[in-house]
Amino acid sequence: MILQSRTVEGTGFQYPVELHEDLAGFREKLEALKKVSRFIIITNRDIAGIYEKYLIKEIRSIKVPYHIIYVKAGEKNKHIDRLKKVFHEMVKQDTDRKAVIIAFGGGVIGDFAGFVAATYQRGIRFIQVPTTLLACVDSSVGGKVAVNLDLGKNMVGAFHQPEFVFAPLFTLSTLPSREWSCGIAEIVKHAFLSGGDFLEKISRMQRSDFSPESEILRYSIDESVRFKAKIVSQDEREAGVRAILNLGHTTGHAIESLTKYSKYSHGEAVAMGLVTALLLSERVIGFPREKLQKAIHIMKSLGLPRSIKENPSKIIEHMEHDKKRDGDTLNFVLLEDFGKYKFGVPIERDLVLEILKFQKGWDELG
Amino acid sequence: MILQSRTVEGTGFQYPVELHEDLAGFREKLEALKKVSRFIIITNRDIAGIYEKYLIKEIRSIKVPYHIIYVKAGEKNKHIDRLKKVFHEMVKQDTDRKAVIIAFGGGVIGDFAGFVAATYQRGIRFIQVPTTLLACVDSSVGGKVAVNLDLGKNMVGAFHQPEFVFAPLFTLSTLPSREWSCGIAEIVKHAFLSGGDFLEKISRMQRSDFSPESEILRYSIDESVRFKAKIVSQDEREAGVRAILNLGHTTGHAIESLTKYSKYSHGEAVAMGLVTALLLSERVIGFPREKLQKAIHIMKSLGLPRSIKENPSKIIEHMEHDKKRDGDTLNFVLLEDFGKYKFGVPIERDLVLEILKFQKGWDELG
Repeated sequence: MILQSRTVEGTGFQYPVELHEDLAGFREKLEALKKVSRFIIITNRDIAGIYEKYLIKEIRSIKVPYHIIYVKAGEKNKHIDRLKKVFHEMVKQDTDRKAVIIAFGGGVIGDFAGFVAATYQRGIRFIQVPTTLLACVDSSVGGKVAVNLDLGKNMVGAFHQPEFVFAPLFTLSTLPSREWSCGIAEIVKHAFLSGGDFLEKISRMQRSDFSPESEILRYSIDESVRFKAKIVSQDEREAGVRAILNLGHTTGHAIESLTKYSKYSHGEAVAMGLVTALLLSERVIGFPREKLQKAIHIMKSLGLPRSIKENPSKIIEHMEHDKKRDGDTLNFVLLEDFGKYKFGVPIERDLVLEILKFQKGWDELG
Repeated sequence: MILQSRTVEGTGFQYPVELHEDLAGFREKLEALKKVSRFIIITNRDIAGIYEKYLIKEIRSIKVPYHIIYVKAGEKNKHIDRLKKVFHEMVKQDTDRKAVIIAFGGGVIGDFAGFVAATYQRGIRFIQVPTTLLACVDSSVGGKVAVNLDLGKNMVGAFHQPEFVFAPLFTLSTLPSREWSCGIAEIVKHAFLSGGDFLEKISRMQRSDFSPESEILRYSIDESVRFKAKIVSQDEREAGVRAILNLGHTTGHAIESLTKYSKYSHGEAVAMGLVTALLLSERVIGFPREKLQKAIHIMKSLGLPRSIKENPSKIIEHMEHDKKRDGDTLNFVLLEDFGKYKFGVPIERDLVLEILKFQKGWDELG
């Protein structure tokens, strides 16, 4: 059953992001696509082991061949080295330009399969079926696809919009607690950027409110998608305002890179990065102290990490290789207030170091 | 000195393709680009050994850092396996999203460097400086960029338009004879597709007319670019009419793949493929016999190969992995007349085999 639908649109694209209870109705969405030669499902064995049968049930009655490609789970496998094997498997399946890729999994699958779709034979269509909260609220929407290099995350990628996003919420019932944190961190990011009612409602939630069938979950996903869709519609290619969606990511990516994508989940790293960004916001552009305390309180209520454990100087070294860097300054997205953002704010390296040292020493605020 | 200029335009892009005597004036073109953090020149040692000094002379007076990345020459090095090293070198150079890649070389460099530009940090700007006739008349224009897989040529790529194309014709003075054939084959392809005056003028030319400073060369390049620009403007993403530019390429790519990109140059393989396409055109859609003879005569006068030496069944096997294939038929671009094309014409495998056998047995026609 369809629960919510939002439209993402921009120059040359328009597609729906639909929340569904489960995979019922997916078949009709596939049948509406024109001239499909083949479906290539890209997924991992963890997801497939539990949910593949529901997907196959939808696909097998359509008179189009399908093939499943399993890739390894985890951020470190969203790597340039993993592409060739998938491309070869597609060629061996006689995959042509009318094939459609179905990315069935979390953010890693969506980014990786999306990049495969963006570049196989110079681009074929694809569909996002996000199975994690992070993918539902963030990575499946907006067309950013990429793989990692040893020297940096998402360094090789494209902007390639899906035909549609179909989020079957029943997959969240098996989502591990850390993965919930991942998605909640991005919801909180969107709420900080959006402000207004969304922020107020989030500020009254507890971690335990986020269960797969709760109204609060649906509301949070829908508001996140609404906000992200609005920003993407204004600036698909991140020439300007889309950069705000990187709030918390300058520090977050650096921590992930420094800890080799194994110690923290993306969401945990982003949560820590949100705190860095808010501390800098208070210092540099007058984000009010009581709102900083409110933000930290929200994160605490939702079980998100706030302090950092890594060496601040090393975090900065990793920031300097990050692609959001512009010349010789470290650029940050900051908040003047909830809902009032500034992007591309150059911050002195020494000040970033000071703030990170403060954040490291400190475990609980507010 | 600028000799000719044509504009390529489509949805969201517009850029000039300029023919110049040499690299004088390149500096001014670079200076006109906005907010450039760095130039990354991608080239190979053969080209660089002779012409790098002229390029550096233009660049070094600009207050923007530059870095040269050397890649190996040859089609077999336009390979997915070669990407990572180049991306890593760019990261180590702190290459950010405001960097501009300069593809300085022939079609292999242009395709490879263009794909790097299309995907590095989800796409950065690039400039084509073609140094071969093939690259001047064809591959540098239109934004098709790609790398090869072991299982197929140009299987992984993108549509990524350059900021501009700057063709310095003096580089043709050191072009080996086989490379001249490469470019002439594509000029002939464009003349067959274009028809009219262009075809008539080409039909009166001899191979020896193509010297670096000849009017005939400039005319042929300009007409080729004009024709290609017109087609690309109509259909950037090859959803339709752009497919005609693959005239001769179904067989051509298959022969290249079968002979592992080492026996023939791209142009030689395309020349053979043009003959296959014209023989099929006569058989299937009534391309007149006397025009077939005229076409073969043109190719002979211009020193292009017409017969094939490879096993026809094996050529067909390699066609079946080619991406222009659509489902279970072999698709060809055919001519009803010079200037009157049809694309996506499904041809029975047996008929293709028959024509290839005929073409193999036969060394001279007309």
